[in-house]
Amino acid sequence: MNDLSDVQTTAQRVNRSALRLFASKGFQATGIREIAEEAGMSSAALYHYMGTKEQLLFDIMNHALNAWYAATAQAVNESTGPSEKLCNCIRAHVVCSGIFKLESTVVDTEIRSLTGENLQTIVALRDRYEGLMNVAVSEGIDRGEFSVDDKRLFRLAILEMCNGVSRWFSRKGPCSIEQISDRFADIGLAAASATRRGKPMCVETLDVRPCSDLVKLARFHFEATRTE
Amino acid sequence: MNDLSDVQTTAQRVNRSALRLFASKGFQATGIREIAEEAGMSSAALYHYMGTKEQLLFDIMNHALNAWYAATAQAVNESTGPSEKLCNCIRAHVVCSGIFKLESTVVDTEIRSLTGENLQTIVALRDRYEGLMNVAVSEGIDRGEFSVDDKRLFRLAILEMCNGVSRWFSRKGPCSIEQISDRFADIGLAAASATRRGKPMCVETLDVRPCSDLVKLARFHFEATRTE
Repeated sequence: MNDLSDVQTTAQRVNRSALRLFASKGFQATGIREIAEEAGMSSAALYHYMGTKEQLLFDIMNHALNAWYAATAQAVNESTGPSEKLCNCIRAHVVCSGIFKLESTVVDTEIRSLTGENLQTIVALRDRYEGLMNVAVSEGIDRGEFSVDDKRLFRLAILEMCNGVSRWFSRKGPCSIEQISDRFADIGLAAASATRRGKPMCVETLDVRPCSDLVKLARFHFEATRTE
Repeated sequence: MNDLSDVQTTAQRVNRSALRLFASKGFQATGIREIAEEAGMSSAALYHYMGTKEQLLFDIMNHALNAWYAATAQAVNESTGPSEKLCNCIRAHVVCSGIFKLESTVVDTEIRSLTGENLQTIVALRDRYEGLMNVAVSEGIDRGEFSVDDKRLFRLAILEMCNGVSRWFSRKGPCSIEQISDRFADIGLAAASATRRGKPMCVETLDVRPCSDLVKLARFHFEATRTE
């Protein structure tokens, strides 16, 4: 039992060190020796426990994308209409980009550093995650609730708007991640010209959970999908 | 004359090599020797002509941000109302992100690698450039043409939406950069709930130049602000 929990702690420590270095310097500028040093172990021990640097990168992205998908899918599945779905997609994505800033930076910038099967797996997970927004947007157009000219461009615009949060959000800033999520959902709903029975839709007029629940959901799924 | 034009060609070749490497691998993972090799010269010659790696990074960002500011400011100054200004800000930013993809990637990701005065100068140029959108948004709110809840969050959302274009745009894709710019301007105007005399504003209803003019403007200012 003790041995196992030691191994888990080491794996988590190595992952965290790799994450910090990949996010701040970039994957290719980070040496395996640096990761080992930051985690307080030898390079030999790190290789023994953890495998290659690419494996560490893959594990970080795999974990994050699975957790974000689970949290967002749950929030979307609980939603009653397309405006609620789009609202929850945007809020969940902003929440994940804000509270998992380092993971978001790595997912956004280092897919270029993956190869072979690792690359295929991560691209498929990213596409599955981004697909949740497609469903909401298509449903909104089909039901006449959204007015969107080009579905693909709309999705790209809104996703990048949310991805950006990981670049500028600070816990010390003037707005909490919950406030930003709600404002971004309003911007996204306005961008889709979302209306129901002639009335513009916004977070306040929709039947959605408070955003603090989405933060709890994201944290829960992040812990639940930890594989080490 | 010949000597001077040779120096210019070398400087441009080195800049282009550095730009490609910084954008694809990141600044910190790129060695000065690699830049020299890619430019077809020795490291010693590169140091002699070009100075440090940080100087190369600074020159790339300084040039891009000055050119983008000049092009966007001209497009905004020609605009008659806040909706036209916001429209042209968004279109010019999308155009610059699309046709100067590598420069955009470097500006977006490598400000972290600058130090001292270089850092201060680039942050000031970026703030001046982003400030153009502030003016448009503030004017739109003051005149009652936009309905925006939080000006700062709106600006961050729209800027990141446009920044994202440098990450996914491809000349081989289904839409031209002009088409994307116009659609993104429509998304931005809808996000601001832009209306005039009760009528929603979009690119088609506004008195703005065709987007192909903005592409010419951006290319012109990029050439005109070249310092080497």
